[in-house]
Amino acid sequence: MKKIIKLLTLPLLAFSASSAVADEGMWQPNQLPTITKELTKAGLQLNPNDLTDLTGFPMGAIVSLGGCTASFVSDQGLVATNHHCVYGSVQYNSTAENNLLKNGFLAKNFAQELPATPGSRIYVTEEITEVTKLVKSSVSSEMSGSERYKAVDSNSKKLVAECENDDRYRCSVVNFHGGLEYYLFKQLTIRDVRLVHAPASSIGKYGGDIDNWMWPRHTGDYGFYRAYVGKDGQPADFSKDNVPYQPKHHLKVNKSSVDDGDYIMVLGYPGRTNRYRTAYEVENTFSWTYPHAKAYREEIIDLIYSHSAEDSEARIKYESTLAGLANYAKNYGSMIHSYNKGSFLARKQTLEKNLTTWLNSNTEREAQYGEALSGLNNLVKQDDKHQARDLILSYMGYSKMLSTAKSLHRLAVENTKPNIERERGYQARDIARFEQSMKSVDRRYDEKVDQEILVAMLTHYVALPKAERLKSFDKFFGLANVSAANFSAKKLRKQLARMYKKTELNSQAQRLALMNEPLSYFNNSKDPFIQLAVTSFKERKAIEEQSKELAGNIQAFRPKYMAALIAYFNDNNLPVYADANSTLRITYGNVKGYSPQDGLTATPFTTLEGIIAKDTGVTPFDAPQKQLDLINKKHYGEYAKKAIGSVPVNYLGTLDITGGNSGSPTLNNKAEFVGLVFDGVYESIIGDWDYDTKLNRSIHVDVRYMLWVMEHVDGATNLIAEMDIVE
Amino acid sequence: MKKIIKLLTLPLLAFSASSAVADEGMWQPNQLPTITKELTKAGLQLNPNDLTDLTGFPMGAIVSLGGCTASFVSDQGLVATNHHCVYGSVQYNSTAENNLLKNGFLAKNFAQELPATPGSRIYVTEEITEVTKLVKSSVSSEMSGSERYKAVDSNSKKLVAECENDDRYRCSVVNFHGGLEYYLFKQLTIRDVRLVHAPASSIGKYGGDIDNWMWPRHTGDYGFYRAYVGKDGQPADFSKDNVPYQPKHHLKVNKSSVDDGDYIMVLGYPGRTNRYRTAYEVENTFSWTYPHAKAYREEIIDLIYSHSAEDSEARIKYESTLAGLANYAKNYGSMIHSYNKGSFLARKQTLEKNLTTWLNSNTEREAQYGEALSGLNNLVKQDDKHQARDLILSYMGYSKMLSTAKSLHRLAVENTKPNIERERGYQARDIARFEQSMKSVDRRYDEKVDQEILVAMLTHYVALPKAERLKSFDKFFGLANVSAANFSAKKLRKQLARMYKKTELNSQAQRLALMNEPLSYFNNSKDPFIQLAVTSFKERKAIEEQSKELAGNIQAFRPKYMAALIAYFNDNNLPVYADANSTLRITYGNVKGYSPQDGLTATPFTTLEGIIAKDTGVTPFDAPQKQLDLINKKHYGEYAKKAIGSVPVNYLGTLDITGGNSGSPTLNNKAEFVGLVFDGVYESIIGDWDYDTKLNRSIHVDVRYMLWVMEHVDGATNLIAEMDIVE
Repeated sequence: MKKIIKLLTLPLLAFSASSAVADEGMWQPNQLPTITKELTKAGLQLNPNDLTDLTGFPMGAIVSLGGCTASFVSDQGLVATNHHCVYGSVQYNSTAENNLLKNGFLAKNFAQELPATPGSRIYVTEEITEVTKLVKSSVSSEMSGSERYKAVDSNSKKLVAECENDDRYRCSVVNFHGGLEYYLFKQLTIRDVRLVHAPASSIGKYGGDIDNWMWPRHTGDYGFYRAYVGKDGQPADFSKDNVPYQPKHHLKVNKSSVDDGDYIMVLGYPGRTNRYRTAYEVENTFSWTYPHAKAYREEIIDLIYSHSAEDSEARIKYESTLAGLANYAKNYGSMIHSYNKGSFLARKQTLEKNLTTWLNSNTEREAQYGEALSGLNNLVKQDDKHQARDLILSYMGYSKMLSTAKSLHRLAVENTKPNIERERGYQARDIARFEQSMKSVDRRYDEKVDQEILVAMLTHYVALPKAERLKSFDKFFGLANVSAANFSAKKLRKQLARMYKKTELNSQAQRLALMNEPLSYFNNSKDPFIQLAVTSFKERKAIEEQSKELAGNIQAFRPKYMAALIAYFNDNNLPVYADANSTLRITYGNVKGYSPQDGLTATPFTTLEGIIAKDTGVTPFDAPQKQLDLINKKHYGEYAKKAIGSVPVNYLGTLDITGGNSGSPTLNNKAEFVGLVFDGVYESIIGDWDYDTKLNRSIHVDVRYMLWVMEHVDGATNLIAEMDIVE
Repeated sequence: MKKIIKLLTLPLLAFSASSAVADEGMWQPNQLPTITKELTKAGLQLNPNDLTDLTGFPMGAIVSLGGCTASFVSDQGLVATNHHCVYGSVQYNSTAENNLLKNGFLAKNFAQELPATPGSRIYVTEEITEVTKLVKSSVSSEMSGSERYKAVDSNSKKLVAECENDDRYRCSVVNFHGGLEYYLFKQLTIRDVRLVHAPASSIGKYGGDIDNWMWPRHTGDYGFYRAYVGKDGQPADFSKDNVPYQPKHHLKVNKSSVDDGDYIMVLGYPGRTNRYRTAYEVENTFSWTYPHAKAYREEIIDLIYSHSAEDSEARIKYESTLAGLANYAKNYGSMIHSYNKGSFLARKQTLEKNLTTWLNSNTEREAQYGEALSGLNNLVKQDDKHQARDLILSYMGYSKMLSTAKSLHRLAVENTKPNIERERGYQARDIARFEQSMKSVDRRYDEKVDQEILVAMLTHYVALPKAERLKSFDKFFGLANVSAANFSAKKLRKQLARMYKKTELNSQAQRLALMNEPLSYFNNSKDPFIQLAVTSFKERKAIEEQSKELAGNIQAFRPKYMAALIAYFNDNNLPVYADANSTLRITYGNVKGYSPQDGLTATPFTTLEGIIAKDTGVTPFDAPQKQLDLINKKHYGEYAKKAIGSVPVNYLGTLDITGGNSGSPTLNNKAEFVGLVFDGVYESIIGDWDYDTKLNRSIHVDVRYMLWVMEHVDGATNLIAEMDIVE
């Protein structure tokens, strides 16, 4: 699994299914005491109450990197996570002469550690406070959708601003169960993050995109950061004088690893799931949204390939974009396949039927929740009327010139308001990241490719019904009387060529300068992309307002629907977990294989010998020769596992994870570190919507493989010595 | 596995490996008493001596179809075999209005049975006689290679002619262990063969080329013929008055099928293996022959695709050729992969080293066998000097015009000799088949494609060193001063276009007429392809003579090498089986899964539900709707297997099989019919050279699946009633 890639404004429709069964569930720490019986049955040897203390053991050792999870594995702030989570920092420190991505990196002492990529942060969640009442304090049932949306938004921003008065912290208000509850998360934010160790990509990314989401797997997807703080022990910007952070808690590393059937759990920050969406939302997403989004992604991939030569500078600039596009094209493809093959929609429909029967069997319940489902669906359907337009506009955002112009202009618009009233993403707290994104354009932009993305998406745009098109866009591009029938890509290309020739947004200096210009500057700009952003703003803002009105109305209905569902589950003695929302969760289960196909069984462990069998010498199957030699000599050191006759490389678990869990430590029944979760199998990609006990499997790097490579291939004995290794 | 496809004149180089271990081995019936202990240990409940009686039970029930195996499963001559073995007959009886391939075919009574494709035969082996002394009677150690070759050839032909004096029989002299022994096979030949039943191709060929050689598998690869004879019970040509043949023995059908680990055996006619080739032969074949042959095949496949539009008449004509080319391109690819990944060559080299040590440890042995290996290798190396030329000339044979011209001219040449002295393939006994092949040209030939094949192969030809080229070819095509550097395909195309315009070999009437023309006719022919055949004959004949000289010399050395190997194995108490040579063999083993990859296990059974999971509605994954409905309803009838909770479809065994075994009955420990073998897994394709106990797996249709489809999908209850079904 790749890190969660923000899908621009792609509507996050989705939904879900049944209540929690064994292995399914991403539990909030405070829920654990309610499932003590299940945890004990699965094999946990700790008291579940201990897991509710965020600053105690083991929760205090779990951190977020923003998009990835990580954990402290020494008392000197050593942080273990996935190779793909430190990848950017390795790339940032690589040069043509010293290619750390290729060769790997190992700091043999603190002094050799390198700064992580700018903006890297380590977040330690210290407090979670329910703030539902505060967030909803000014909300009334008479409010319009827009009013409700703004009230919730404003209350949330105030809570965040108050919390962030202490600048060591980053705070957020997050909704649970579609707005039934709100929680304030307070995270200590470590700003000096350094790269300590990463194996060669031919170990850490072994199998590459081909093996991504696949089993059997042989990826050494691990890497190490270290958290640094000022001499006073408080978060500080990078400084040579900073010292390693000493966490209150860190994980012991159990080199015995695990066996088939053993209890395992993952603590981390799963990004987003959609387990409680309605049958209508499911059907629309799988039969409309995903097929269209997959097609647009594949179209953009194709045009990038055809407009950038292999190994050209342009191609290199788009490698990361290509990876993201392909990653989710594959993801959607798998989900569509699973959806078409499985009974997901039918089960969802059955659930709604049973829920309705249950509601109608009691007049009080009927009065309270009777309208929830139909009301919610009516609102969602309103939104879906514009989904074709919205999806095209969102993929148009892959044009850096267009998206940059819109962002910079919006920043000027927002800057006319007091900070607290500005849109999310444009507040003072967001400016560092905004600047980072303006800088990164240079590394991810090629004029020709950018233009072709616009041509492709405008070709889809002109096929939209007139009512769904933006008058300002039509006017700007002279498309008012143009439909799919008489559209000329050639003419558009000429027009765009003039725009690309004239724009200055391709200059980093210009982009950074524009961050400080007032709105009047934009209104008078001669830059064609800024003119497009300015001239279309009113119309786009109106769409945004409609969307907020709808979102506000949905905020009134979805919590009602969720409350009905929760009541129904509770009446059936089933605990309910909230959809993932990038907050701290626990998932537990066991080491276990599965049957990916009739006639095939995926066994729970892979071995070193599997690397030899896969190796072709060509990326991504090009393990270092030293490693191959050691395997051929069966030089296992102390890391062989008797039951499999070799060193275990990766293993399968039943854990309920998703993007954002990347880098999470895998813990045994005593909360000792036994590996890192880094992916799920192909058949469980639909798990974001529908957990299937038979097919949902997480993929973990075995701690033994990590230690074997560190000791025998990379000689990272200083790190092994630093960790508390037990067995 | 596809039926053995004759590889034109591709040199059948190859080699092999170790001695027999459990499951490995294609045993001659008369060898079984020597492995009684092993057979009993594996689970056989019959007396191995019973299996040596060719006319007793169960051997008397096993028949050959020539290229496929089959078995009698009723006392009315009902014959069970693979769908792919009756495919030609189904195709032959199909029309646009009544597409039996698509719909399947079932005769509800004898009268509805249809004639099999012309030339279909059922061969019942009645006698196997060792004739080594007779074959070698006129061979002396002073003979040249050519003399030796001709002596053996002539003696063999005489034995065959004598045996075939009784025209109910077809006879052949076959060498074992590279000429160490010769056996005469006498087969009763049933000439009236009728098609009784075949399921729809969407069952019988389910998975098509995609699943070919693959596991998991869900193919219903079965079909039924019936043998007919004259009223006197003797073989006869087709006649309405013929009656079903009543075999002395037929197999009982055990509907209990088998379980994981059960004893199974396959009796049949495996085509060709190369288990005893030298290390040098192995290395040359895998590092030179297969890569080149694979490349030529892929080149021809590509040019057929690019010169015939999809669904065009031309494409349809080449479908069968394409399938054959692709089948072996995949086959070679798998073998090259296994060879490069595995230790086959190293083990072969170790064996030769150990053999040499063993030989040298005893002066008598050394004197007797010391030169065998090096002598054999020297001869093979001589042959390999011309392998680049020979391979190109053999693939040139894919041009129907060229190969037809050569065959017809050769027939005229051979017709100048007494019948007994004619080359194999041109004797009176071969004429019916020869005529069949002349007729089939129409269905497999397109002028443009044929020309492009010659262009492609002549392009390779001109790159050969001058000494390896044929002066007659060079002269005919004006290539005497042409090399790869100055070769003009354009010019060649012009020349070929004239030839194709002028030739009459594209007319069936002309080809059949030419079968009766004398040599003088050919010598004066104006047909350009015949002229090419005539003008190059002398040179090609000289190459053939060289090749016979070499073959004769190899005939002196390979038996010596095999004798040494056999003595070595015997000294180590290991029984030795001969390489497959299309004669009757027995292989035994067990139902058993395997691990195709680290982290994956192939379980031994697939189920009906796997069909649903694979089904896309698009060929080759388009099971009949009736079948899908039955599966969805879990309508298993009496055929579900408790351990897997469904009807077993296919299963894996450890049997040592190869092409030619197709259609062989799979028997349980009491020699009852429990399915049909029809393929091997991808990892065991190299099994023709190197049997690996861990990876070598045969694939069988489960008798339960056959009966379930016959009863519930196709309503073939008349056939179920006809068979002796036990449990």
